[in-house]
Amino acid sequence: MSETLKRLADVIESRKLANGGNPEKSYVAKLFSKGDDAILKKIGEEATETVMAAKDARVSGDKSKVLYECADLWFHSMVLLAQFELSPQDVLNELARREGLSGLEEKAARKD
Amino acid sequence: MSETLKRLADVIESRKLANGGNPEKSYVAKLFSKGDDAILKKIGEEATETVMAAKDARVSGDKSKVLYECADLWFHSMVLLAQFELSPQDVLNELARREGLSGLEEKAARKD
Amino acid sequence: MSETLKRLADVIESRKLANGGNPEKSYVAKLFSKGDDAILKKIGEEATETVMAAKDARVSGDKSKVLYECADLWFHSMVLLAQFELSPQDVLNELARREGLSGLEEKAARKD
Amino acid sequence: MSETLKRLADVIESRKLANGGNPEKSYVAKLFSKGDDAILKKIGEEATETVMAAKDARVSGDKSKVLYECADLWFHSMVLLAQFELSPQDVLNELARREGLSGLEEKAARKD
Repeated sequence: MSETLKRLADVIESRKLANGGNPEKSYVAKLFSKGDDAILKKIGEEATETVMAAKDARVSGDKSKVLYECADLWFHSMVLLAQFELSPQDVLNELARREGLSGLEEKAARKD
Repeated sequence: MSETLKRLADVIESRKLANGGNPEKSYVAKLFSKGDDAILKKIGEEATETVMAAKDARVSGDKSKVLYECADLWFHSMVLLAQFELSPQDVLNELARREGLSGLEEKAARKD
Repeated sequence: MSETLKRLADVIESRKLANGGNPEKSYVAKLFSKGDDAILKKIGEEATETVMAAKDARVSGDKSKVLYECADLWFHSMVLLAQFELSPQDVLNELARREGLSGLEEKAARKD
Repeated sequence: MSETLKRLADVIESRKLANGGNPEKSYVAKLFSKGDDAILKKIGEEATETVMAAKDARVSGDKSKVLYECADLWFHSMVLLAQFELSPQDVLNELARREGLSGLEEKAARKD
């Protein structure tokens, strides 16, 4: 796995209350203390902000906000994964499993 | 970067029409042929499905759907990144830049 | 209640399978036959499309898409209400209950 | 139009800064002062919360949260309408125009 994803997943894990995370000092610990709904609301919010950023980027020509919001979306989805005792490695394994891209695309297409 | 992310980004890139992607054979090429709005709608859809999967998982005890929907969300955000000539490595760099977690959390907190 | 909302709620109600709705002929009956998840996915989709339409309207100067997507959002939320044996009148009553706007705003503000 | 919708639209209109709305006293005036993005983020948030409420209602058997979140969604979409100089009556007219339900359903179906 990418070093960054691993390091980030470790820090997120350390923010769980059971691991000593402090909701008064840490944004992630605060999310964990609020529970599922707070984390899920962030997923919805960050997805909306990603859509808005992409629309804005077509007008401004500046795509940095798309990158920034995408990073936010990945970050909060990593908090969600941790909340369910899942890891980014599990996501990468799932993506690899759908493999090739014929496999992956078939999967995506099958959903529709 | 993770081998899986890199390989996946390469396949997605190869599905762009300019790179020979065929919308009739490839789901990703079809998304590219439809353009921004089709990709953005998928971001919104996959976020909603992730939220639903997390709610379902608390009832069923089966978290595999959370993993599956999260993989879908990451996959479609990679298509969005490619659409804007960005890569998962850019996202990882941005996440690393926010660094430590004090940095990252400060960033996240500042948004609220 | 508005005549339009009432009439629309009646038609939606008539599309329930228990009331003779035919999923092969009616879009709404098809949603009912698929159940909660299909309806909830539409709520997420229409919200995303409303956001996109508003962004587009600022560029094009044509706000008709905002109106159109907003109508879609209300329509699908009426299907959701029907799915839970609720009506637009219930929503109007709830909005009236929050009353004045001091009341309404206080409610909205309290959520944040 | 429903009296409630009309009254609510009038109050929202009065909260525009140009009409004397005070962002320090009024939640709606504050949304108007922040502009499009703040309003659009609320649309995304309320849609996500509606989805979560529906999932919760199937577990708890209490559908009042669905009603509550639906009211929030309609309320914030009315703020969006006002931001674009549109009214709930415009939405009702659009819904009526799609008329009958054959018309309405045809419209909805055609989108997919």
